Order: sequence, then C-alpha cells, then structure tokens
Amino acid sequence: MAQHEASDARDDELQGLTGRRVDLILDAVEARDTDALSELLEPLHPADIADLLEQIGPVERRGLLTLWSGEIDGEILSEISDSIREEVIDYLPRHVLTEAVRELDTDDVVDILEDLEEPQQEIILGALEMVDRVAVEQAMAYPEYSAGRLMQREAVVAPMHWTVGEAIDFLRANDRLPDQFYHVILVDPRMKPQGYVTLGRLLSSRREVKLTEIEEESFRTIRASQEEADVAYIFNQYHLISCPVVDDSDRLVGVITIDDAMNVLDEEHEEDILRLAGVGDESSISDGVFDTVKQRFPWLFVNLLTANMAALVIGQFEATISVIVALAALMPIVASMGGNAGTQALTVAVRALATRDLTTSNAMRVVKREAVVGLLNGLGFAIIMGGIGWLGYGSAMLGVVLGLALIVNLLVAALGGILVPLGLNRMGLDPALSSGTFVTTLTDVIGFFAFLGLATVILL
Amino acid sequence: MAQHEASDARDDELQGLTGRRVDLILDAVEARDTDALSELLEPLHPADIADLLEQIGPVERRGLLTLWSGEIDGEILSEISDSIREEVIDYLPRHVLTEAVRELDTDDVVDILEDLEEPQQEIILGALEMVDRVAVEQAMAYPEYSAGRLMQREAVVAPMHWTVGEAIDFLRANDRLPDQFYHVILVDPRMKPQGYVTLGRLLSSRREVKLTEIEEESFRTIRASQEEADVAYIFNQYHLISCPVVDDSDRLVGVITIDDAMNVLDEEHEEDILRLAGVGDESSISDGVFDTVKQRFPWLFVNLLTANMAALVIGQFEATISVIVALAALMPIVASMGGNAGTQALTVAVRALATRDLTTSNAMRVVKREAVVGLLNGLGFAIIMGGIGWLGYGSAMLGVVLGLALIVNLLVAALGGILVPLGLNRMGLDPALSSGTFVTTLTDVIGFFAFLGLATVILL
Repeated sequence: MAQHEASDARDDELQGLTGRRVDLILDAVEARDTDALSELLEPLHPADIADLLEQIGPVERRGLLTLWSGEIDGEILSEISDSIREEVIDYLPRHVLTEAVRELDTDDVVDILEDLEEPQQEIILGALEMVDRVAVEQAMAYPEYSAGRLMQREAVVAPMHWTVGEAIDFLRANDRLPDQFYHVILVDPRMKPQGYVTLGRLLSSRREVKLTEIEEESFRTIRASQEEADVAYIFNQYHLISCPVVDDSDRLVGVITIDDAMNVLDEEHEEDILRLAGVGDESSISDGVFDTVKQRFPWLFVNLLTANMAALVIGQFEATISVIVALAALMPIVASMGGNAGTQALTVAVRALATRDLTTSNAMRVVKREAVVGLLNGLGFAIIMGGIGWLGYGSAMLGVVLGLALIVNLLVAALGGILVPLGLNRMGLDPALSSGTFVTTLTDVIGFFAFLGLATVILL
Repeated sequence: MAQHEASDARDDELQGLTGRRVDLILDAVEARDTDALSELLEPLHPADIADLLEQIGPVERRGLLTLWSGEIDGEILSEISDSIREEVIDYLPRHVLTEAVRELDTDDVVDILEDLEEPQQEIILGALEMVDRVAVEQAMAYPEYSAGRLMQREAVVAPMHWTVGEAIDFLRANDRLPDQFYHVILVDPRMKPQGYVTLGRLLSSRREVKLTEIEEESFRTIRASQEEADVAYIFNQYHLISCPVVDDSDRLVGVITIDDAMNVLDEEHEEDILRLAGVGDESSISDGVFDTVKQRFPWLFVNLLTANMAALVIGQFEATISVIVALAALMPIVASMGGNAGTQALTVAVRALATRDLTTSNAMRVVKREAVVGLLNGLGFAIIMGGIGWLGYGSAMLGVVLGLALIVNLLVAALGGILVPLGLNRMGLDPALSSGTFVTTLTDVIGFFAFLGLATVILL
C-alpha cells in the first residue's frame, strides 16, 4: 500500500518532533539551559514529549528530567512507554506527580498503575482524591487486560423517558462531565443501558423530541469481564465510537471509547508480530542491552534445541553424505523452502484467527486449500529445482530426489502452517506464540529426512 | 497479553455469527428456503453478513446471493472484503445496487470503487445522484491511499464568530447532516479551519457563549495529499476522534473520522505482517487456490534463488565436508541461529519504524545496542554450542569452530536486522517488504561460509 518515505521533511510535519528539534533539546540539556529547554518543549504535544523521552539515551533522559521534571503532566505520564515510566516517575517531585495524576481520567490512572511496582502504586493512589481512588481501586479489581480495566467510569446517562430538552438542560447543569463523550446512554431505573443517542442527533433534534425516538438503531454493550482484545475486535467490526460496559447483572459500570480500543488494537498487533518473530512481546526499541538479550535469548535457545534435532536427523545420513557430498550443499534448499512456505501459510492463518476470519465454519475448507496450494507450489518448485539438480549436478536421479523432497516438504509446510495455529487456538493458546518454532522444526526435520532418506534409497 | 480462547461460546457472544447459525443458514440455502434464510440473516449486523459471505465457499455464496441478493444493502457492500466484492456485485439486480450505493457516505462509495474494474465503476457512478457523483469523482482524483480518498466530504462547519445558540439552531435546521460527526469545525470566511468544538462542549455550554471560548486547545489539520498510513499514525498518536482535511491552500475539503483511521491502522498492520512473511499483502483467507499460489510463488521463488546461493557457498567446501562429514550436520545450526536472530532484530526494527519510534535521533544508539546484543547472544550460544560440539563430537577444536562461527553470524544477523530496514526506509521503500529475504540470505551465506571456512582453516 502506502510507500514509506522517511524524509526528515515528512517527520517534521508528522511529529512536531523533528531531528533538528531533538538536537537543540539535547544541546539545551547539556548546557543546563532551562529556559531554552522549556521554549523547545513547550509547543510539543504530550505524546511527542513522551516519544522524545523514549528516543533519547538514559544519560540525556536523566539530564532532561532533572531540569524539566516540574513540567511533566498527567498526559505525558500516560503516553510514556511502560519500559521507562518507572524511571521517569522516580525523578518527579512528589507534588508534581500528585498534580499530574489528579488531572487524569480514571482509566488512564489504571493504565499507569498496572505496570508499576507496589511502592510506586501506593504513592499514586495516595495522590488521588478519595472518589477517584475508589474508582481506580474498583477498576484494578477487574482482571488484567479486561474491559473493566480499560473503561472509564465517568459515563453520561439519561433516563429513557427524557426528552432532548431535558437531556440538554441536564448536561448544561452538570459540571463534572468526562473530557470526551460521544453518546448519551439511555438507562432504565435499575441502571441497565437500553440504547444510546449520539450527540449529533441530540443537537440537531427539537427540544420536545423524546430520546427514545432518536436512539441509534444498532446498540450493544460490553461485559466488564470481556478481554480487551475482544473489545478492540468489537469496535473495529461494528464501527463503534463508544460503548457502555456492564457488569454480570447488566448494570452500567463504565464506558469504553474508540481511542482506547484503537490503542489495544495497536498493542495486539505489536504482540502478534513480535511473537511470530520469537521476540518477547514487551520489547521496545527503547529497551536497554540487558533487557533485549533477556527477551531474545530464550527463543534463540529453543531454536538451538530444534536445530540440534535437525542436526541429529542429518547425522543419521552421514554415510550417504560421505558418498555423495553434493547432498550437503543441496539439503538446506529443501529445508529452507519448507520453512518459508510454512511461514507464509502460518502468518495468513494467525492473522485470520486474530481478525476472526478463520472460524470453525471455514477451517476445513481452508485446510484443504492450503494442502492443494502446498502441492501445486511443491510441483512447480520440484520441476524447477529438479531441473537445476539434473543440469547443475549432472544426475537426473538427483533431480528426481530433490523434486520429490520438495513436494513432500511443501505439503508438510502447508499443512503444518494451518493446522498448528488452528490447534493452538483450539487449546486456548495464542497461535502467534509458538507456531513459528513448531512449523520450522517440522519443515527442517521433514525436509532433511525426506531429502537424505530419498537420496539413500534412490541414489545409493 | 490477553489469552486467546476460541471457544464457540465466545464466538457466539462476539460475532452474532455462530457456527450453529452458519450451519442453519447453509441448510436454508440448500433447501432454497428464502423465508428461513431471511429470518436467520435479518438479526445480523451488516459486518457479520459480510464475514459470512467471506467464510462460506463459492458455491454456497452463489446459492445465498441468488436467494437473498435483494436484501444486500450499502453497508454490507462496503464491509465485504475486496476479494469477493466484484463477485457479489455481479449478482445484484441493478435496482438493488443503485439503492445500496445511494445510501452510503461518499467515502464509503470511494472505498468500494477503488477496487472495481472500469465497467463496474461506471455502473456504480451512474447509480449516484449528481451531487454525490461529483463528490466521488473529486475524491477519486486524489492519489490512491491518500487522505483525500479516505475523507468524507460532508463536514459540519460554523463561522468563528458564532455563539453556541447560533450553532445549535443551525444544526436543528440542517437536514443533510452526516451520519456521524463529533465536532463542529470553526472556519474563517475563506473556509480555512481555525479550530473545533466538541459536541459535548457545545451541548453543555450556555447559548450565549461564543464558540471560540469553548474550542479545543489542541487542533490540527491533515493535508488531502497526505498518505493514509500517516493519517492513521496521527490519529493514534494524538488521540483524535475526527480531523479536518485541507487542500494545498489550507481550505477545508473534508473530514476524516477515527473509525476510518482505525481501519487503515488495521490494514497497515496486515500489510506489515504479511510482507514480513513474504506473502502478497492483499492475501486473505477467502482467496481461492489459484490466487493463493500466485501470491506465494514469487517469494518462494526468490527464496529458491537465495537458497541456491547458499548451496553454492557450501559447494566450495565439498572437499572439507568429505573429510569431516559431521560438518554437514552442524552447519545448518549456525545458519538457523543467524536467521532467527536476524528476524528478531528485523521485526523489532520494522515495527519501530512503523510506529515512528525509530528515527534519525536514535538510529545510531539502536544500531550500537543491536551489535552488543548480537555479540552477547553470540558469546552465550558459542559457549553452549561449543560445549555440545566438543562433548558430542569429541573434538574441542570443532567446538571452537562452532562457537566462533556462531559469534560471527549472530553479530552479522544483529547488524543486518537493523541496518537493512533502516537502509530500505532511507531509500523510501517499505522496510517490511524485502528485509526478511535480505537478512536471511545474509545469515545463510555468512553462516555457512564462516563455519565451513573456519573448519577448513582450523580443522584440516
């Protein structure tokens, strides 16, 4: 789709955080010039300041925070990535932290609290006003990654029997409205949501119109216990802007807005792509060396084990290889083709499971299709590679062995690529998490075994 | 993060499109029972009906459309995936298509048109009322994947000098308001946007308050020529709900809302993840066998070429392998570890480039970090694998060769994993598109060369 052009000019327009500005900021930090620093940081959006803090090195970060920590506000705090938030909070004078936290909506406070250690959690909870503290503690009582954690508790509601005029008068008189809201939720006397009215309809209708006459046709609620990944799916699938959250007795407990759902969608994607690559799903470009090694070593270690398994398979055929050394050069081709074909099938399957496009209704058909695709690709590459094997190495039978091994391995790759994620998903596991290792181990082992085994039978 | 549990029960709650319902629908199609079919489809959200059409096979789809095509509305049409939309449109009676298209906002019509062939485009344009047709044709004049294509042209604007009361009276009197809108955009007499007011603020303010007194603090516009990927980034970064779009002379030409931006974000994700796996970025689980082979064959072919390159490298060392056959079993370990480490570094880099977390400001530091991580991981696995090589194969020097080759290859993998995507990005190419092939070719070639070369020098 879109071409990625990373010219500085575009970065300028996009970020407000230009390379040039970063340089000037770092100069000001080094010169300990607080005035220049404030002047450079002041026009930036909190999200850009958070990015800046993530992009600069730890020494510069310490310098900047020492000079400027008084200006850190709630929004910056909630934009900062988890990996450096604790560090930043440690630098904040207590009164700055208190003020920053107090100006946030409760869902943002929850988001910050989740990733902090106990003592820092206590400091932040202590900084809140009593009513907010109770709200935050109630939200923290919901399971991690649930809708209950994601929602804001401030909801704008109206009794079902109200008119447009009554609703508008109520809104005008209410001085504790949420920062952002897009609907008025209609509730029954037991606080069960029954529908909602968009602010646009409310504004464009006459005062005497009943709210129930202008409510949206399609209306749904989300349960507080639902997983946030499902919340993101529901928002994306049904184009919701905000959605009431209910408890197990269907009573309204909060509201989730689309910006939070979009954030979750983004995080879920990050998780999928990083897990598929065998990187810890919390990795970030701002992590230090030690954290990065810690994230990557375990998966490389698993790969070491499976690679040794493949080596053992090859070891069984040392006698064959010592007779026909060319096999050693050709065998990685079979394994590599299988690994790539498996990764292709796997990635499409993982993505389709994430978007709920792959379900029990079409799983069988997709498996069949993958098998046919695997066979066809196998045949195609068998012909090409068989020809290369024949012409390049002067042995028609070597070409046949190569071709047959490719057909076997591409079929195995196709089936593994779809069945492994389907199986993991059926078992309630994340299909992105370990499919890659399973599938490439499969294609390595089968690839080497098929090629060397066929060579032993046919060529010796 | 969230565990993925794909029990049917959850699918039920999520989709409204349960496995059971799909089965009943397919039964009704087979029995040609139009009444039962309508009863089963009627409660479904258009997005779910679109999913249904994608999930069932081509024969069932034909059957369903023949019986039920009269009920296809605009929303279903705009939810359907590109891969089957043409097929569906072919089944629609002309008057159904006309009606379906007329009820859509112009941005949705543009979205449908983009992927159709000329004759079908003509039919749809012909079905529109003149004013909409002009709007759609103007939008189609913007480049593909630009903000101009994404925006809806229906914007709600007010002169800057108006009061809350004037704005509300205007909204009440206006009977062509967009389906969804969240802000009133304040414009100067030349239609240049100067700020905006949320509907929430408008509703909760007194009639005599001036709009400029309640406008949002932070305000930004998007240029119609900007890429849609940038639009998604801006919405996500600055938590926008809607954003005015301007032409090159800063005049208002339309509005983009967050649900469209969320959609783009989702598509960009899909593109990244599929490209990293070497699958055509338009692939979908509902594609047929032929399309799927067509998407996957080219990348497998590229892989075949690079695998042959690796085979040529190995071929240079046949003399060495014929002396020490164990090398043939061990060499894939070195290549595989390099490939995996390279993919890890690469994926983190591609993701960080997509989220603009990797910039010119921190590129040097990240490259250094990757190099150190690669060396540390290399040292760790050198010790482990060196030990295995020594103990398992009874040769300390073989262990040394393995260890040294791993260090070299993991360092190369780390550097390749970060420098290749950075380089592609600098050249204006999508770093996700071909990085994987570059990096694994590099680690294969270097891995085999380092291992077999060191073995030749040290062991022979």
